[in-house]
Amino acid sequence: MKIQVLVRLKPSVLDVQGKAVERGLSALGHEGVSNIRIGKVVEFELEGDTGEDDARARVEKLCGELFVNPIIEDCEVKLDNEVR
Amino acid sequence: MKIQVLVRLKPSVLDVQGKAVERGLSALGHEGVSNIRIGKVVEFELEGDTGEDDARARVEKLCGELFVNPIIEDCEVKLDNEVR
Repeated sequence: MKIQVLVRLKPSVLDVQGKAVERGLSALGHEGVSNIRIGKVVEFELEGDTGEDDARARVEKLCGELFVNPIIEDCEVKLDNEVR
Repeated sequence: MKIQVLVRLKPSVLDVQGKAVERGLSALGHEGVSNIRIGKVVEFELEGDTGEDDARARVEKLCGELFVNPIIEDCEVKLDNEVR
């Protein structure tokens, strides 16, 4: 099963990388871009012929243990048919 | 208009970060996860009341100039209704 996890900074956390890109865009003369947030996308193949609920639970466990810092980040899990 | 850009390493490029995570997962006892690829997700608000085609062209120009290294990365642009 194909899995996509989007890891984003929580809305209340300042995204310094995004701010830097925003300034870079202004400096390069690109206007009209605002509120840039930069996150990570983790994609992988999950083996095992399990149901959707079970797969989601497994992936959320992985997020909590390895992919996400729950103090400053949120994660969004997309399974198979929701990917793309 | 809400824009989401997914920046991924090209399939032919070795993803060392993904490989490191894959080993970390094995070491932590998580089996059944393979082919991990880690990319970036850039989300922002594009101002200007332009059509979809024009917005896509503007965002692809930004990708080429700032978000993506075209030698090793691909980008996928999602507009408004395709986001989420």
